[in-house]
Amino acid sequence: MSILVVGSVAFDTLKTPFGERQKILGGAATYFSLSASYFTKVRVVAVVGEDFTADNEDVMKKRGVDTRGIQHAKGKTFHWTGEYAENLNEAKTLNTELNVFETFQPSIPPEYNNSDFLFLANIDPVLQTRVRDAMQKVQLVGGDTMNYWISGHRQQLEEMLKRVDVLLINDGEARMLAGDSSLPRAAGKVLQMGPRALVTKHGEYGATIFFRDGEFAGGHHPFRAPAMPLDEVQDPTGAGDSFAGGFMGYLASQGEVNRRVLKHAMFYGSVMGSFAVERFGTERLQSLTREEIDERFTIFRELTHLD
Amino acid sequence: MSILVVGSVAFDTLKTPFGERQKILGGAATYFSLSASYFTKVRVVAVVGEDFTADNEDVMKKRGVDTRGIQHAKGKTFHWTGEYAENLNEAKTLNTELNVFETFQPSIPPEYNNSDFLFLANIDPVLQTRVRDAMQKVQLVGGDTMNYWISGHRQQLEEMLKRVDVLLINDGEARMLAGDSSLPRAAGKVLQMGPRALVTKHGEYGATIFFRDGEFAGGHHPFRAPAMPLDEVQDPTGAGDSFAGGFMGYLASQGEVNRRVLKHAMFYGSVMGSFAVERFGTERLQSLTREEIDERFTIFRELTHLD
Repeated sequence: MSILVVGSVAFDTLKTPFGERQKILGGAATYFSLSASYFTKVRVVAVVGEDFTADNEDVMKKRGVDTRGIQHAKGKTFHWTGEYAENLNEAKTLNTELNVFETFQPSIPPEYNNSDFLFLANIDPVLQTRVRDAMQKVQLVGGDTMNYWISGHRQQLEEMLKRVDVLLINDGEARMLAGDSSLPRAAGKVLQMGPRALVTKHGEYGATIFFRDGEFAGGHHPFRAPAMPLDEVQDPTGAGDSFAGGFMGYLASQGEVNRRVLKHAMFYGSVMGSFAVERFGTERLQSLTREEIDERFTIFRELTHLD
Repeated sequence: MSILVVGSVAFDTLKTPFGERQKILGGAATYFSLSASYFTKVRVVAVVGEDFTADNEDVMKKRGVDTRGIQHAKGKTFHWTGEYAENLNEAKTLNTELNVFETFQPSIPPEYNNSDFLFLANIDPVLQTRVRDAMQKVQLVGGDTMNYWISGHRQQLEEMLKRVDVLLINDGEARMLAGDSSLPRAAGKVLQMGPRALVTKHGEYGATIFFRDGEFAGGHHPFRAPAMPLDEVQDPTGAGDSFAGGFMGYLASQGEVNRRVLKHAMFYGSVMGSFAVERFGTERLQSLTREEIDERFTIFRELTHLD
């Protein structure tokens, strides 16, 4: 089944303990699309500027991503500059040039109207709400947000949360959104705001999905997927969006979304996140095979399963 | 099989967001003993002062712990005063009165000489080494340490590490010990220092065990056990020692220590840690049943297992 993602396509200038890169392809929608492309048909709605080349777009096209929804605007593409310290856990933003992204108005091509799944990457919740309301026929909506919207655009965010089936955020963001330092309690409060399930990401420690009571067949205990304690992390940028791409992509590849499928999706999300961080930018996500993905899935299973 | 633990028995005065307590029973050896007592016979070597009452000792005796190795010295018992902030992840030490613990010389009663397993709780590595060398017949030695010994008593610690089969420390301590910010790399370096396996604890995110190549039958991939995202944390004190007690206690209850047994021990460690933090001090560990423990083991399995 097909999945539509709306979000940022960007250039990233970044520095990690392993090196630095200037204006490499990045953005939430880019990482998401590439990651999800290993599971299902992906369509992307985003905006880029005049510095965005055909080669840049080809990175997505080569993975079969439908890029007809990428709008080309006058001006420059969104450009993020950041840096990671030794522990790689947190990015320090040095500069954010929104450029054409500042006035982004998502426009959904008619041929995308039959999309089965929708992912609202981290953009203004007003735009997320508008897109979601325009896509009434989708089976399931995933969404992301960040502390900027949580603290400064609360009301708009609450409207968006009512329209999302699965919210994927960092555990710190979940605590902030709920105003509760206990993650299980915070999760309970976030699930009262709308989402039927909440995925909280713990960086190098994996991610936990919490279910609203009565939602999704097969129980309501939370479920935790590990992250990878095996390989070198070169560049953590895009880990969360790659997780979301693997998670949503796998869901879209299955007929029914139940608890069992959601648990497997958590594992595929972690697997894709673990690949993304092995190389700078989207490099690793451009050249994977489904065999490599399933091999790592097996390693993740061994990492957590008793028998 | 029997297990001998050498470590601190103490009084704790502490404050968490859920309340405060004055001079309640604590100490690494206490948490360890109570936790391990649900799995095997436990013997304890420690020192206490004149303020340590028969009632205090009865807490351990009631759980079948052999307390003949507790030395009664002139003076006061080790007294720790600390405080936890809202997120409960880190304790702020307000005061440490070592008292009789300052001159602690572990003396092992002859009737403990046939112990099968040994756990060296966090004390001076010189004492840990001395005890370990006096117990040549044990099958397996577990050990703990902390940043104080890592940064200030390096050489003594390295002697101790050569004598430990399984080291159980926080992931931050592992990074510090190895001088490497990457946990998998740090683990590899620590395993070169002596231990055949390293358990790194991640607080609310669980714990990971790394194996030295060729050690313990059944592969060498790391294994991760979750912590509990379900219940209220009232007081995190003793979580790590309760983990160690469940982990070592379960090992001692099994005939053979292989990878499969170590994986189950990781789960039992997490289970016991999760119980410990539900109430202040050792309260919860005093009154558990094996049924409650195995019930939670099942929940931990559901939390992480795909099928």
